[in-house]
Amino acid sequence: MNATPINTAKDSLIELRDALRQFANERDWGRFHSPKNLAIAISVEAAELLEHFQWLSEAECADIQPDAKATLAEELADVLLYVLQLADKLDLDLATAARDKLQKNAVKYPIEKSRGNSKKYNEL
Amino acid sequence: MNATPINTAKDSLIELRDALRQFANERDWGRFHSPKNLAIAISVEAAELLEHFQWLSEAECADIQPDAKATLAEELADVLLYVLQLADKLDLDLATAARDKLQKNAVKYPIEKSRGNSKKYNEL
Amino acid sequence: MNATPINTAKDSLIELRDALRQFANERDWGRFHSPKNLAIAISVEAAELLEHFQWLSEAECADIQPDAKATLAEELADVLLYVLQLADKLDLDLATAARDKLQKNAVKYPIEKSRGNSKKYNEL
Amino acid sequence: MNATPINTAKDSLIELRDALRQFANERDWGRFHSPKNLAIAISVEAAELLEHFQWLSEAECADIQPDAKATLAEELADVLLYVLQLADKLDLDLATAARDKLQKNAVKYPIEKSRGNSKKYNEL
Repeated sequence: MNATPINTAKDSLIELRDALRQFANERDWGRFHSPKNLAIAISVEAAELLEHFQWLSEAECADIQPDAKATLAEELADVLLYVLQLADKLDLDLATAARDKLQKNAVKYPIEKSRGNSKKYNEL
Repeated sequence: MNATPINTAKDSLIELRDALRQFANERDWGRFHSPKNLAIAISVEAAELLEHFQWLSEAECADIQPDAKATLAEELADVLLYVLQLADKLDLDLATAARDKLQKNAVKYPIEKSRGNSKKYNEL
Repeated sequence: MNATPINTAKDSLIELRDALRQFANERDWGRFHSPKNLAIAISVEAAELLEHFQWLSEAECADIQPDAKATLAEELADVLLYVLQLADKLDLDLATAARDKLQKNAVKYPIEKSRGNSKKYNEL
Repeated sequence: MNATPINTAKDSLIELRDALRQFANERDWGRFHSPKNLAIAISVEAAELLEHFQWLSEAECADIQPDAKATLAEELADVLLYVLQLADKLDLDLATAARDKLQKNAVKYPIEKSRGNSKKYNEL
């Protein structure tokens, strides 16, 4: 009687949140990680990501090389890591928040009205 | 013979990525979602999040009310949703990128040197 | 017959705008300086400025040292230089725009209602 | 004996700085205007400006209409007004800082090496 293997893998957002908690605790960084400071950190990391695209033409954007991709992966990771820490500090379930927002967006941007259209919902 | 229930739940980052793909496809938004535009969107959403903390004192930050929390959850979700879309557009595995970056940070910020210290790694 | 000395000094915003035009022309940078790219540059430089305050407590912010001040002066200058270039590209008179906005703010934030209050005008 | 008219006009950056001082004083906003909060405000306003360009193609950017221009003028003014306030709070001469930075950039980006090239100075 072979037990079917149970997938005990943590969801990656939970796993990363827990790893970040430990990381900050080990370094006693809790004192710096006020919600305000974490929100600043998210903006700062987002701008570091954006800087890579600053002077690229649309054509150049369509042809990003592996080297550049590795750098962008790190910058994206930086944003995500701070997003996770702020969500944790505010005691929010990030996956649920994201699912809820996507639902809300589906209502704000009905398929028929928003197809091929980049207007904001309040201008549709 | 009871089969042990198998956890077939998708990882939430994968689930959200797939939902976002469908969302953008249904609206034919691929044309707007160049890497550069998505990177701009991340910065814009990060600043909308930051705006909520703009004039708050450290004391006020420590006492965020449920109403404000719900708004912040939406803003955090907005950032995450664009981070997921840019990672997908660049064909990056976001969870792996985040794990790798956390590893790298652990090397850059050794526990002993960085405990209780907010200096950048190159100033430690 | 002593001629009264005429103040021929250019207004500093005009002087800087002209110097920036020459700077970009000499380097043939006009092709990179689309309004969109300049707007990105402003956000990127604003975040570099913000990064210096990221982990500072309110007390530390009140005691910025000369060294740090020189760095902040450069970051502020970077933001201003791109603001001037975008205004020029859009053929806007920046000083007039700033005066007009200040006037508008005076109406949006009446002294009596907004004294000691950091609320947004639409919440006053 | 016709007196040559003397240009007694204040430089616009000085005039705006003074007007902003009065504006904040009348509203007792000094307590909110810590350097850190003003740096956040600059980033938030820069992102509001950037949002207008978020989904625009390069072609659309080249053809901005008067209506949109008036909105952009306000957003640019918002950035400038906070830049002026932070410079004032730090007791910096913004025009001098901008002139100095432009000089420094001229050294970092020699005309011959940087013509038609958007690379960062450390990659030239």
